[in-house]
Amino acid sequence: MSLHRIPVVLIGFGNASRRLAELLLERSAIIEEKYHSEIVCTAISTSKHGSIASDEPIDLGKALEAVRQGKKLSSLPGTVPVNDAFEAIEQSRAEIMIETTPLNIKNGEPAISHIKRAFDLGIHVVTANKGPVAFAARDLRLKAEAGKLCFLFESTVMDGMPIFNLVERALPLVEVKSIHGIINSTTNYILTAMEKGNSYEAALTEAQACGVAEADPSLDVEGWDAAVKASVLANSLMNADISPDMVSREGITSIKAEALRVALKKGSKIRLVARIEKRDGKIIARVAPEEIPADDLLYVIDAYSNALILETDLMGTIAMVEQHPNLTQTAYGLLGDLLSIIWVLFR
Amino acid sequence: MSLHRIPVVLIGFGNASRRLAELLLERSAIIEEKYHSEIVCTAISTSKHGSIASDEPIDLGKALEAVRQGKKLSSLPGTVPVNDAFEAIEQSRAEIMIETTPLNIKNGEPAISHIKRAFDLGIHVVTANKGPVAFAARDLRLKAEAGKLCFLFESTVMDGMPIFNLVERALPLVEVKSIHGIINSTTNYILTAMEKGNSYEAALTEAQACGVAEADPSLDVEGWDAAVKASVLANSLMNADISPDMVSREGITSIKAEALRVALKKGSKIRLVARIEKRDGKIIARVAPEEIPADDLLYVIDAYSNALILETDLMGTIAMVEQHPNLTQTAYGLLGDLLSIIWVLFR
Repeated sequence: MSLHRIPVVLIGFGNASRRLAELLLERSAIIEEKYHSEIVCTAISTSKHGSIASDEPIDLGKALEAVRQGKKLSSLPGTVPVNDAFEAIEQSRAEIMIETTPLNIKNGEPAISHIKRAFDLGIHVVTANKGPVAFAARDLRLKAEAGKLCFLFESTVMDGMPIFNLVERALPLVEVKSIHGIINSTTNYILTAMEKGNSYEAALTEAQACGVAEADPSLDVEGWDAAVKASVLANSLMNADISPDMVSREGITSIKAEALRVALKKGSKIRLVARIEKRDGKIIARVAPEEIPADDLLYVIDAYSNALILETDLMGTIAMVEQHPNLTQTAYGLLGDLLSIIWVLFR
Repeated sequence: MSLHRIPVVLIGFGNASRRLAELLLERSAIIEEKYHSEIVCTAISTSKHGSIASDEPIDLGKALEAVRQGKKLSSLPGTVPVNDAFEAIEQSRAEIMIETTPLNIKNGEPAISHIKRAFDLGIHVVTANKGPVAFAARDLRLKAEAGKLCFLFESTVMDGMPIFNLVERALPLVEVKSIHGIINSTTNYILTAMEKGNSYEAALTEAQACGVAEADPSLDVEGWDAAVKASVLANSLMNADISPDMVSREGITSIKAEALRVALKKGSKIRLVARIEKRDGKIIARVAPEEIPADDLLYVIDAYSNALILETDLMGTIAMVEQHPNLTQTAYGLLGDLLSIIWVLFR
């Protein structure tokens, strides 16, 4: 049986995208066998290593090596440099774009524009960037539908945990009535460390040292990351049309270690919880510290884990827990979406 | 747009199947809208109320009413009585069979034969009966594949929680390396009640009174129910070919209330846990009471809930929790499978 050749363009080539490239190399044989497809990369755009396009498949192994060595991607043989992401998209002649540029918390750009350009060119889109779904979900969904294109974003919330795929494909007719959960790892880590007696500052330093928290932790500790994810969840699972600034938001910076210890003595824990509910026909989202009793599922979600609980009409209450995710899970979210599109293309 | 008419045959018309009939009546408009399909019942076979077939759609509302009043189904106008399940299947001219006869713990019959007959006639199969997948998974899967037919059984484990659909459809390429969890409600209820100071006998009586345990609780308390579910999970998610008698099995009948209280003092709980693992390339399943520490996810699974934890290669450790399921969730498992088949038929 002959293989379908699927050209893809990578916009962004950071940790998640590079781990995806590794997975594509590692799993090419099984992808060929199960999907009768060969995924080839025809363009890459990065912020630090330049942007390239190529008529022939780009050797992802060599691209990874170039980035590791701090070289420009245009050093790869057979590639031509292009000016930016937009040129990379246009020259890629790709069927699928993988968008993994960093989150812009103000307005989701330029990722939204990247995605619109891809849709204009008839390119399906997979993204790990929360911004587009948090700021422009409805717009992008309509554009995708108009072009009969896929728009998938499984790795935006809980890494690759198939939240959106679960509801979309495995729960037909089910209406999600409310959602709540622990979806930010940094705050979860810090609060857990503070419970053990660390100060906020020490806990943050520890979280940064082990790679859980960013150098600038404000997006996490002020609740923005959870608010953006809450928007993504509301917009995609409850058909809302909200943006992160509409999420009522309280971070963890004012929580004292003493308060955590008092709670613990009472048998409860304080955690940053995101909640999305319908009230008077309107969808309300909030992110705030909550006291969690010992018999609650969220009580046992440890410093490195995430949990999401869905209240539904037909399926009652169901929870999904992701324990100790790492980069592979985020990259798998992208890979799973990519394979879903290939499956749709050739079913 | 004209509607596809999908004739179905109901083999078994107990609680789950009757709740499914109610859901089909309640949700017919949305099913017509979303699936362009009208699901019609053309035959029903029951153990107590006889078996019928009909050229015209059977009025499910009247069938439910007849059963409530203790009448034979053949009292329904326009129907003809048939001798048994096999005749109902043959005369139904159905596209899909819903098999919900009770579990036969010895060999899975007659459900296996019902399903084989359906496959021989080119009928897709949905079942809530664990027996066929526990005793004849490989055989039935091959038969289904040979006839290009669907064989779905989502409601066999954790009611309608989409375990099989999750792995099959939302986790492409992912290999399940091991599975463990709390998947039997009766033992969970009894052990929780015993922790509160009840004797085993009192806890069992209480479980029977509130409908969690059957009049004959032996299948549950001796671990058979969990062993059958473990076989279903192993056979369908880990490509094993085991039967329930190959599952190492220890029930809860010899657990003393004192042992539970001692564990609780140490900060742990004893629960009946099912485990499926690969050892030396062989799949091993066991069901046994285990001591669960306070920081374990299973520690907070209450008397009415279930949890399943999957260790995977690409997606790390993920858990699915179903809180306080009722009959609607089991019926939804059947409905979800039914809709999946319709989606496949007309995609």
